[in-house]
Amino acid sequence: MKIVLLGSGNVATHLGKALKNSNHHILQVWSRNHENALALADELSASVIKCIDQVDKHADIIFICVKDEAIAEIAGQLPKTNQLIIHTSGTQTIEILRLHQFSGVIYPLQTFSKSREVLFKEVPVFFEGSDEPVNQQLKTLAQSISNHVNFADSDKRKILHVAAVFAANFSNFLYTTAQQILEDNGLSFDFIKPLIAETATKIQFLNPLDAQTGPAIRQDIEIVNSHIQALIKYPGAQELYALMSQQIVKMAKEKNG
Amino acid sequence: MKIVLLGSGNVATHLGKALKNSNHHILQVWSRNHENALALADELSASVIKCIDQVDKHADIIFICVKDEAIAEIAGQLPKTNQLIIHTSGTQTIEILRLHQFSGVIYPLQTFSKSREVLFKEVPVFFEGSDEPVNQQLKTLAQSISNHVNFADSDKRKILHVAAVFAANFSNFLYTTAQQILEDNGLSFDFIKPLIAETATKIQFLNPLDAQTGPAIRQDIEIVNSHIQALIKYPGAQELYALMSQQIVKMAKEKNG
Repeated sequence: MKIVLLGSGNVATHLGKALKNSNHHILQVWSRNHENALALADELSASVIKCIDQVDKHADIIFICVKDEAIAEIAGQLPKTNQLIIHTSGTQTIEILRLHQFSGVIYPLQTFSKSREVLFKEVPVFFEGSDEPVNQQLKTLAQSISNHVNFADSDKRKILHVAAVFAANFSNFLYTTAQQILEDNGLSFDFIKPLIAETATKIQFLNPLDAQTGPAIRQDIEIVNSHIQALIKYPGAQELYALMSQQIVKMAKEKNG
Repeated sequence: MKIVLLGSGNVATHLGKALKNSNHHILQVWSRNHENALALADELSASVIKCIDQVDKHADIIFICVKDEAIAEIAGQLPKTNQLIIHTSGTQTIEILRLHQFSGVIYPLQTFSKSREVLFKEVPVFFEGSDEPVNQQLKTLAQSISNHVNFADSDKRKILHVAAVFAANFSNFLYTTAQQILEDNGLSFDFIKPLIAETATKIQFLNPLDAQTGPAIRQDIEIVNSHIQALIKYPGAQELYALMSQQIVKMAKEKNG
């Protein structure tokens, strides 16, 4: 397929590379940030365009990989076209592209950082098209870059995104919090890296409910309180600790009947 | 070393196995839960004792691996002895064993579940002894089961434990929350397993602050609010989502100056 990429962030970068590696042809890259567009276009052997109305008419597909709040605006700037317009947001509905006759969503459920390679074939990808032929087209496209392709309508996709925020973005924020507390006390973040790795590996095999350990699930209220007290200098972490422990204790009580 | 193990939970089980695998001799196992004691003793080729006063006088070391709130009580039940008494809690101080002349702490910083094997040699282990000769003894003992041994006094150990609760126990609770939301909406938890794995793997190489992705760090308030709304049926998850997003947005603002 001949593809134009609008955006140059984490998703645009990894998706662009995955498409190129699967022998699709990235014609052009556009980004609000021209520097980033240049860098990505270089990596994808594509040209750079400065304005959205320069989009190549010979492209089959135009990917909009920008911040959610900018998708509608970018879609509105594209000329009326028979090309397939795709966004990659977990939370925006397909309706946001309704100006265009052929539209769809390709949602890769993974956390992407530019500085880290990802095995895209292992990334679960969800698709939704404006009609059945588009669904087929999206499915074929998605299967060319991933071995884990499923249909998800906009409601299901939003649920997937919310779950992903908990599992990934919020977990990472907990790592950040732990790091801050450790380093602030002269302890290396490296000490808890094996713990982080094991915690994530465990639930590939165990149900997370069964994998839960720690003072709160043991309803060891004395420890919970002593930790909350130890966090006096970290009001944000303290508030998080209290709320999460309260919810885990509640879960423990429900589990034990 | 000849060792007695008081306790039969996750830590007792994994520590017992690690000690046995490093050619220490587990003489006896005691547990409040006699069934569990029998099972663990069987696995460790040890005898079972029903009362703490049956502890073998020929043992060099007595490990107290019980719930934090029970440590003092168990330590009090042990006869005055020259044996080395060790607890394994992250949060309890060494002072809790002060009745005994030779005492110490061995704190393995990892999450243990009985149903999952752990490569104990890779587990960071922290020690603290009641005096310098005991410190040396604990260091040697710890190094026999782990390649990552450090001294940590009771204050530092507590910080390590608090950080571990964030990085492991709370992360796992986020996985549980994600699972509940997914399965409640007919979606498989399997869909986010690659995401969980990648999120944890990433921070082995990237600083978690740099690895942070998602709507909150992008300060995409529209998405954050739409997710909070989508969680209306899950008040606990909703409260967590709001608090974590608020803290991540704050971090984003500080990061961007």
